Amino acid sequence: MRLSIIAVIVILNLCFQSVNAQSEQIITEDFKPSSLNQPEKIFPQVNSQRRVRASISATNASKVQLDIGGVKYDMLKDRNGVWTGESNPQDEGFHYYQLNIDGASVPDPGSLYFYGAGRWGSGIEIPSTDQDFFALKDVPHGLVSENIYFSKLTNSFRRCFVYTPDGYSENLKTRYPVLYLQHGSFEDETGWSSQGKANLILDNLIASKNAVPMIIVMDNGYAFKSENKEVKDPSKQRESIFEDVLIKEVVPMIDAKFRTIAKREGRAIAGLSMGANQTMRIMMNHLDTFSYYGGFSGTANYPSSDAIDVSSFLNGKYKGGNALNKQIKLFWLGLGTKEPAPFPKSVGAFRNMLEQQGIKYQYYESPETAHEWLTWRRCLKEFASKLFK
Amino acid sequence: MRLSIIAVIVILNLCFQSVNAQSEQIITEDFKPSSLNQPEKIFPQVNSQRRVRASISATNASKVQLDIGGVKYDMLKDRNGVWTGESNPQDEGFHYYQLNIDGASVPDPGSLYFYGAGRWGSGIEIPSTDQDFFALKDVPHGLVSENIYFSKLTNSFRRCFVYTPDGYSENLKTRYPVLYLQHGSFEDETGWSSQGKANLILDNLIASKNAVPMIIVMDNGYAFKSENKEVKDPSKQRESIFEDVLIKEVVPMIDAKFRTIAKREGRAIAGLSMGANQTMRIMMNHLDTFSYYGGFSGTANYPSSDAIDVSSFLNGKYKGGNALNKQIKLFWLGLGTKEPAPFPKSVGAFRNMLEQQGIKYQYYESPETAHEWLTWRRCLKEFASKLFK
Repeated sequence: MRLSIIAVIVILNLCFQSVNAQSEQIITEDFKPSSLNQPEKIFPQVNSQRRVRASISATNASKVQLDIGGVKYDMLKDRNGVWTGESNPQDEGFHYYQLNIDGASVPDPGSLYFYGAGRWGSGIEIPSTDQDFFALKDVPHGLVSENIYFSKLTNSFRRCFVYTPDGYSENLKTRYPVLYLQHGSFEDETGWSSQGKANLILDNLIASKNAVPMIIVMDNGYAFKSENKEVKDPSKQRESIFEDVLIKEVVPMIDAKFRTIAKREGRAIAGLSMGANQTMRIMMNHLDTFSYYGGFSGTANYPSSDAIDVSSFLNGKYKGGNALNKQIKLFWLGLGTKEPAPFPKSVGAFRNMLEQQGIKYQYYESPETAHEWLTWRRCLKEFASKLFK
Repeated sequence: MRLSIIAVIVILNLCFQSVNAQSEQIITEDFKPSSLNQPEKIFPQVNSQRRVRASISATNASKVQLDIGGVKYDMLKDRNGVWTGESNPQDEGFHYYQLNIDGASVPDPGSLYFYGAGRWGSGIEIPSTDQDFFALKDVPHGLVSENIYFSKLTNSFRRCFVYTPDGYSENLKTRYPVLYLQHGSFEDETGWSSQGKANLILDNLIASKNAVPMIIVMDNGYAFKSENKEVKDPSKQRESIFEDVLIKEVVPMIDAKFRTIAKREGRAIAGLSMGANQTMRIMMNHLDTFSYYGGFSGTANYPSSDAIDVSSFLNGKYKGGNALNKQIKLFWLGLGTKEPAPFPKSVGAFRNMLEQQGIKYQYYESPETAHEWLTWRRCLKEFASKLFK
């Protein structure tokens, strides 16, 4: 008797989960394969409601779920042992996701893989109304080059990707300005030229004369003293020496290896989330090196939303707005309208400080996007179009 | 009664599989994480017996297997729901593999991913006695550049990766010879600079003065008329137009974009397996374009092992050895000693033809390797060291 009651509870609970897994809305049957699928792969798919449909053969599995946007959606098994399921509508843009098969969290064999959330895993693209600005089009394309180097400061091999615009290889007398562009936490140097579409965004901006030809350097924001090398988990608190690596090793290497405009007027620095925080500190400590700054979804007071004490914040670097207004050619901030706490209030507190100090800056909001890559692609488009002019 | 007999048969069968899954040899407990693991990932691991140990948490799974080298090895579940299992000893070098969870074939969340066998999936590196030649060392490193282009012939965007040696970016007056290097079937343009280690092999050869600085172009060997564009499965038989794409689009693009020695004495062409077959045909049809050839684990008579009729084979291109000996600076063939049929006999039949025609060639055998990437890394090392001298 007691067992049967438990059984009923279990069954009700399972039903409840399944109901949860679907919004009340009817699913529109106009799914198309994701643009980020592996060659020849039909799933995952996306429909006009921005739902994701995943499908995988798992003949002997007892439970398979689609895990996206922090929600696990139960999938259903057909007579051939193929499991299929849909998510609720997702925001436009790029999202990381995974499948869960009888308790195992694994990449979807149908998708391409991207580094984020601290692992290589599945990603999916929900078509956005403004996707043309990062689309692969028949315009001249720059190169994205993998550049391996040995860092004496970290005592390890490191890597940056370098975008050189169309014409760089042929116009051997031309020198180019450089944007140093950083990823966020639990991401790496591959993000901006993969899910970030940085190369395609610049190809399109340059082809339409909305940006000047520039080099973009995308390095890895995790850099630690060699003593701490055995501690490899980025989530563990350690002293980051990324600022030293960038200033003492990366910038000189790039200026030696590429035809750069090797002065502050020819250098910009920007980053997203953790990268915005890092690059803001680097910018303020090295105004002799950089003259343009972009902070995408982050500021150096993160995670605090408190009013900033300008005399102590970043060693008082923001005191005296007029001096900074003369030195900094562009101080640019961007944020998505759907960003979670603490970003809106934390960035808000930072903007209040700028305004109280009379520091000029530009602010952009990405409509209907959260702390995700479509926000940052749009930020790059807006920011890059204002650089080196 | 009948049911219980069936049950016994099933159980015996399961036991038999489990016994199969382990060789009789005792497993040496000196496993180390694979060099191709994702950052911070402890599994998969490899031991001194060259066994692979995989491990994954799958709390509710009923059967988990490690699928490598064409064999599925049952893994065992511990009280925490973590499944672990080992393979039999593998050959030295790189191998594709996957996990099977209750019937679902998925990538191992612990490994990096590589394109091969027609999909992005897990790869593992079994340390080899000669691994120093492709190791990442503190020598000057070249760049590997992603080059996107639109092909009018296929009416699609295509991509090649271009290795430029250390110094290319700085020595703006220097021109370099070019090696066109192709992947095998169900692989793509990413293979040679990822699991193939082509960039590290050349970095090391050039640093030790065992190869001259050269550019390497790695394109995608699958190219079809735009009419057939909707048919995307490479396994389907269609008319390949890769020869046209390479000769009419890729070579002119590379000569325009990079500082090449744009004549036959400055060009080599090589490939592995399907790529060896393709590039041999292209070489013989375009002796005005290329003067060095390398065939790694394949020849144009594949899959036949019959004696070659030189008057009809490739339109009689191999008739008259003396003329070819004057035109071709190096005709080079390589094969692994453990390659499966039909490769040894098919390449053997081709060599017999060369010898009957008095055509000079060099032949290399990779010890103890099959139709896999360590064979091809070794072939590239041997072949590249003889080029453009």
